[in-house]
Amino acid sequence: MARYDVTMLVSETMPVYKNKVSKKPVFTKVSQIAQGASTNETDVHFNVHTGTHVDFPLHVKSGALSSRAFDITTFIRPVKVLDFMDVKDGISSSDLKTKNILKGDFVLLKTQNSAQEVFDFNFIYLKADGARYLADLGVSGVGIDGLGIERDQRGHPSHHTLMDNGIWIIEGLRLQAVKEGPYRMVALPLKLDDVDALPLTVILED
Amino acid sequence: MARYDVTMLVSETMPVYKNKVSKKPVFTKVSQIAQGASTNETDVHFNVHTGTHVDFPLHVKSGALSSRAFDITTFIRPVKVLDFMDVKDGISSSDLKTKNILKGDFVLLKTQNSAQEVFDFNFIYLKADGARYLADLGVSGVGIDGLGIERDQRGHPSHHTLMDNGIWIIEGLRLQAVKEGPYRMVALPLKLDDVDALPLTVILED
Repeated sequence: MARYDVTMLVSETMPVYKNKVSKKPVFTKVSQIAQGASTNETDVHFNVHTGTHVDFPLHVKSGALSSRAFDITTFIRPVKVLDFMDVKDGISSSDLKTKNILKGDFVLLKTQNSAQEVFDFNFIYLKADGARYLADLGVSGVGIDGLGIERDQRGHPSHHTLMDNGIWIIEGLRLQAVKEGPYRMVALPLKLDDVDALPLTVILED
Repeated sequence: MARYDVTMLVSETMPVYKNKVSKKPVFTKVSQIAQGASTNETDVHFNVHTGTHVDFPLHVKSGALSSRAFDITTFIRPVKVLDFMDVKDGISSSDLKTKNILKGDFVLLKTQNSAQEVFDFNFIYLKADGARYLADLGVSGVGIDGLGIERDQRGHPSHHTLMDNGIWIIEGLRLQAVKEGPYRMVALPLKLDDVDALPLTVILED
């Protein structure tokens, strides 16, 4: 069995959504042996949508489910990586129809985003009709290698279509090391209480 | 197979080392639909030694290994939970000698700490001679349910004895739900670059 780490590294120089300075993680050395302390210790400050993460319905709808309702073993399960390296702009229902996707599948969409080391305002996203197609098929989850599953479409139709149907959304995967095919996903979140998203560490096993 | 979540929940009201206000996580709502934004988003700020975490040698020795050198699949492996619920004060070599511990074992020490919901300045810790005993046996890792593997012993002898022998240290486990015995640990860290500790999410499977 091989294991693949498909998680973004969290650092002060990592790509963040729309390059917003407010979304850059900040690392602060709060205790330093070099300055006479007995230990080295670091504080971190970041947005919960940084890097690889799962969105909860609370992200786009007030009063909706947060991390508090999440079973942290949910993402230890089979997944299918689907290759959309040839897609420009966005993934549509016609792209998805070329793949063997079944009810209950958890699909990870591999695109040109995975190879990008800086934020691209034109990153590949899941179009509204693609989200609709996946919801009608009855998938259980969708992961993508962009920092959003949609760029910033007015009304966030892809988010709503998926979330309204109880479909998990994982954003910010790094899928360049894995080929299309079935894997076992082992993904665990940072266990933060009652927030709108959780950073994830994601391993794929084949 | 059953799965047990042995991870502390990270919140603003969680217990932190020595009850220091500076070690309390801070959650900030940086975008709110109720205030006209298109999404709800949260920033978090916390010390990397918060809750359940792995310490790296950099924590007690400048220039030593940090999270950058860590293979994030290291903690997907067999472990042994050892019951020390009867121990007062600290776990010594004489306590450890009552258990079947073998070279290469990764041991998780279950104590009265697991049941505590507030920080106890007299939490059960691993005494220096206990750390020495485990190092001489050649264990590969030690986890404990206190927020430190030692309380704040001058010179941090237990940390140094373990780290100088390449033995992993996990602190802040919540082991009340599991009995003594063998388990498969599935633990993944938050993937922060080049820091002295990493928050962990830890599942035990039997």
